[in-house]
Order: sequence, then C-alpha cells, then structure tokens
Amino acid sequence: MTRCKTGGLHKQVVRLLSVGLVVVGMVFSVASNAAEPLSSWRDGATRDAIVRFVTEVSDTSSSAYVSPSERIAVFDNDGTLWAEQPMYFQLMFAIHRVEAMAADHPEWKTREPFASLLKGDVAAALAGGMPAIVELVMETHANVSTDEFAAAVNDWLATARHPKTGYKYTEMVYQPMLELLDYLRANGFTTYIVSGGGIDFMRPWTEAVYGIPPEQVVGSSVKTRYEVLDGVPTLVRAPEMNFIDDKEGKPVGIHTHIGRRPIMAVGNSDGDFQMLEWVTARPGPSLGVIVHHTDAERAWAYDRDSHIGKLDRALDEGPDRGWVIVDMKSDWREVFAGPE
Amino acid sequence: MTRCKTGGLHKQVVRLLSVGLVVVGMVFSVASNAAEPLSSWRDGATRDAIVRFVTEVSDTSSSAYVSPSERIAVFDNDGTLWAEQPMYFQLMFAIHRVEAMAADHPEWKTREPFASLLKGDVAAALAGGMPAIVELVMETHANVSTDEFAAAVNDWLATARHPKTGYKYTEMVYQPMLELLDYLRANGFTTYIVSGGGIDFMRPWTEAVYGIPPEQVVGSSVKTRYEVLDGVPTLVRAPEMNFIDDKEGKPVGIHTHIGRRPIMAVGNSDGDFQMLEWVTARPGPSLGVIVHHTDAERAWAYDRDSHIGKLDRALDEGPDRGWVIVDMKSDWREVFAGPE
Repeated sequence: MTRCKTGGLHKQVVRLLSVGLVVVGMVFSVASNAAEPLSSWRDGATRDAIVRFVTEVSDTSSSAYVSPSERIAVFDNDGTLWAEQPMYFQLMFAIHRVEAMAADHPEWKTREPFASLLKGDVAAALAGGMPAIVELVMETHANVSTDEFAAAVNDWLATARHPKTGYKYTEMVYQPMLELLDYLRANGFTTYIVSGGGIDFMRPWTEAVYGIPPEQVVGSSVKTRYEVLDGVPTLVRAPEMNFIDDKEGKPVGIHTHIGRRPIMAVGNSDGDFQMLEWVTARPGPSLGVIVHHTDAERAWAYDRDSHIGKLDRALDEGPDRGWVIVDMKSDWREVFAGPE
Repeated sequence: MTRCKTGGLHKQVVRLLSVGLVVVGMVFSVASNAAEPLSSWRDGATRDAIVRFVTEVSDTSSSAYVSPSERIAVFDNDGTLWAEQPMYFQLMFAIHRVEAMAADHPEWKTREPFASLLKGDVAAALAGGMPAIVELVMETHANVSTDEFAAAVNDWLATARHPKTGYKYTEMVYQPMLELLDYLRANGFTTYIVSGGGIDFMRPWTEAVYGIPPEQVVGSSVKTRYEVLDGVPTLVRAPEMNFIDDKEGKPVGIHTHIGRRPIMAVGNSDGDFQMLEWVTARPGPSLGVIVHHTDAERAWAYDRDSHIGKLDRALDEGPDRGWVIVDMKSDWREVFAGPE
C-alpha cells in the first residue's frame, strides 16, 4: 500500500517536474549555492557580518526577518562590481569613440574635456569629475539610436583589453562580488546596480556578466526622443543630460526606478555615501558595505586622494554608522574573475 | 527494482518539497489560473486573439516562442485598468488637495488651472490636457516627502467614493483586466503599468489592487531632491515636472525603466498610440490591444470627442496595424471588480 502511495506520489512528481522544470532548476541552484557561499571571501569579521545579516533577514523566526519582496540590495558598479583603474572603463570606451569620431567634430580640438583627451591628457579630462565624465561619455554617443548604441558597446567589449591585465573589461569583475550577488539571490534578494555610469552603457552586458537584467540597472542617462524615421519607430539619444545618478542622485535614482527603500547597499567611494546613508537609515534591519581598495599587488590601492573612486568621508564615518568596510587585500582570497 | 527507484524518487520529492515550498505554490497557482482564464471575457474574436498570442509565445515548440525574460506586457492605467470618468481619478485627488491647501495658496485664486477648479469649473481646468493635469496634480503635492505623499494617497483612497457608483476608486478597476493580468503572469509574463498618471500616486496601491509591485510601475514624475532634514535622510518632491509619461513619452519611459522592448501593449486612448506603435513594430511576435469604451449602461461610452481618453487615430489606424480593439459592451461579461 505504501508502495501504491509512493506510486501516486511518483505521478505527482512527474507532473510537478513537467510543469516546473525552471522551478526545479531554481531549487537545485539554491541548494548548490547554499553549499559553499562566498568561497572567495576569507573567514573573518567582514564575511561574518554579511552572512549574519543575510541569514537574519531570511529567517522567518527572526525578529529581523524581511519579506522577499523587500529584500532589495543595490550595488555601485565602478570600483564595486568591476575595476575602475587606471580610469573608468566607460571612459576608455569614450576615448575610443572620441578618436573614432574626431574627424566629424573639429570643434572638439578646442573644447574640454575632448581637447585634453585628444591630446592624450586624461588627467586634465578627469579633473571635471563625474559630471564632466558622464557628459563626455554621453555626448560621444548622441544622435544615435539606443539599438546602435548597445551594439557599439558590445562591439567594443568583445575586443578591447585592459592595459594592465590584458583581460577583457568584462573579465575585470570582482569574483567575490559575483559570489555575493549569487548568495543574495539564492537567499531571496533582488539585486540592482545603482551606478553613476551610463544606464545604456551597462544594460547590454550586465545580465550575462552579473546576472542582473536590464530592468534592474539604474544609472546616469541622456535625454531620449521617440521618433518615427522613414516609417521605423526609433529611440534617439539626444546630446543632453537627463539624470546624473551619483551622490545625492543615487537615492533619487533608487526611488524613481525601484520605488522601495533597499535594505542593503554596497559601494566603494564617496559617490556612494548618500546611497548607503539612505539605505542604512531605514527603519528595520539594513546593511551598508564599503569596498576599500587596499590591494596594490593584485589590483590597486587608493582612497582619499584618488581622482577616481575617492573614498574619504565614507571611510571616516562608515564605521561609526555601522557600515562594513571590506579590506580587499585581507578579506578577498581572489580578486578578478578573469578569463573563463 | 523499479519500486526501489520510485522510493529514491520519493526521497527526492520530499527533499524538493522541503526546499521548494514557495516554488510548489507557484506551480499550483499556475495550474489553477490556467484552469479558468479570462472568465469575464465573452467568447469571441477578441478573447481568441489574446489567448492565441499568449499560447504561441509561451509554447517552446512554436516558431513564435518568446523566452519568459522577454515576455513583458505594458498596460496603461487610466481608462485601461481602472475607469477615468467623469475625470481622471488622480484629478479627483488633486481637487481634494486643492481645496484642502487653498488657504495656504491665495495665488491659486487667479492662477489656472487652480482658479477654475476652485470655481468648480472642471472642464476649463481639463482644457489644458494631460500636461496641465499632471502639473496640477504634482504641484498640489510638492514640498512634501515621498513618504508623506504616499500616506496622503492611501488616506484618500481609504475613504473617497466614486460619484456615480459609490465604489471606492480601487473598486473601479476592470474585472476582465484583473483576469488578463493574472492570465499573463500565469504564463510567464511580467506585467508593467506605463501611465501618464503620477508614478508616486500609483505605487502605494498597485501591488494590492493589480498585483503589480512598485518597481513595475512607470509614470509621470516631479523632480525629487535628497536632503538630510534634522538628521533624517528624506526625499522631497519639488514643484517641477521631471517627466511626462504620455504619447511620445511612453516608449521613452519604457526604455528608461525596463530597458527591454515589450511584446504586448494595452491602452485605450491616443495617448497610448506611440506605446502600441513602438511595441508592435518590434521584430518577432507582438500584440497591441485597445480598450474601446462602448458601454454607456454599465460604464461610459466615449472616444473621438472626449476630453479624457480621446481615442481617434488609434481607432482609425489600429485595425490596419493588427491591433485588437476590445468592445467593452460586447466583449466583457463583467465590467468593474466592485466591492470584495
């Protein structure tokens, strides 16, 4: 009789499997991730703090339990999920475009930041900070359709190589952060990117590289126009900034795109200060994490005086605010994901 | 021997069930929804066209198959998911606010559209069209935090009643559209609202009423500032338009928030024309649906000459573009969801 019941159960499984293949895949991936999470993170206070937070908010019997729909984690991109030295990778792409487009833009010879870039003086071009950089990147891609822009990004990423490692830029992502994204998703979190970089620069590749789909990417943007060109509906990128998703802009970008207050924020620079401040001031449990670039050998070491990824106020105030400071050199067993 | 395997399978199920309770729930809900879909839709060409499209894009053996991640459907809200007569419900809310705030705004007595509203001349206030209406709604809620605004919306919805039916406004939603949203989600679609209405006006209630969470709501918005007020991080709504998500703005709003081109779009007015045009011009399968308000008895009948929900060009060109025109009077067995 028991065997008969088992037989009945057998039918249920077959039906369940036939209806729920994707679902079963989810279950097994959860199980496998749960087996060995964060293996590139060394044992210690940093890893413990992250695991403790994720365990508590996922535990229905915990007073710190948070429902899955509110389990939202936001990540900066440049310097947090992938490297940002010797300059923002999007700026490498912009320089590539400036050189390619210079013949059609004689005015760039005398106009900053283009003039400095064409002279090879990157430091001068960077002096304008994120707004100048974002404008540069956006303008070198204006008056093209959003589809053409995505194709240009993918073409560049397929061949361009990082000057220090020789890796593709999409191989310059931090292995411990890929594991953290997986670990969070395996525990019911939804993971978002909230970056000062261009939203249309990131969306063509974030799903393949980070497992973060386009609709979970928040970034800076140019104005976009809808036009029907020769009968073809087209979205055209205008040479005008729409939104700068940096500093005070990050909580605004989060509100605009997500409409919920995240419970976890991860960044690496003062450009992420307000995002961590906003998230960790919420009622209920929250976690703020700052990646401190301390590894000159395997990557780079920089903080207070850096043109890129300047980390000063967040480094001073972070600990008192209860933010976890990741020491890249001591906390990470591996750094870059590197080639497959 | 076979029974031993079944026994092993038995263990697998128990493990699978223990790990995947939520998941199993999903599977069964899919099954139950699939049992009796769209029961408020009368049999006929309209229902058949919708079911055929959803069946084909969900069928892995069909040449029209679309992966779940690309199975995105966008819905207008006013006049498509809930009613919009005798005026946009958000305008009802705005009038409520104008009256409540008038004492603090003497300048409104001589400034349109406030002056007309305070005189009770709604038609004159509506004459400015959607931009004027959105501005009115936004300005009556400026200089408050996003949290205070959400609370004001919920307070109003809890007590306000529709002048014709006496229903709460959240009961003035179309039962056939609630069933369509369920049917699409049961078939792997992600459902978004893309509305000219205020994004922060919709987000407080769309999940409870439509099953559409805040991150899947796209709408018009005012500029928002991040400030730390008396030590409290706050998002403050500024009295300045940020984005109008109507007409040419809808494909732009879709690109900004979703970053993918939907495969299905549902609207009811010429304000939705470009959204349907953008979606149905994609390569591969797509479906455009226009709800035509033809039911003067159970609801309202209006199209070409209506101040609100003007449906003219989309009604003329829709059929030739292959868009499905829903005749509310003949295609819907029920109209409003009404009280629980």
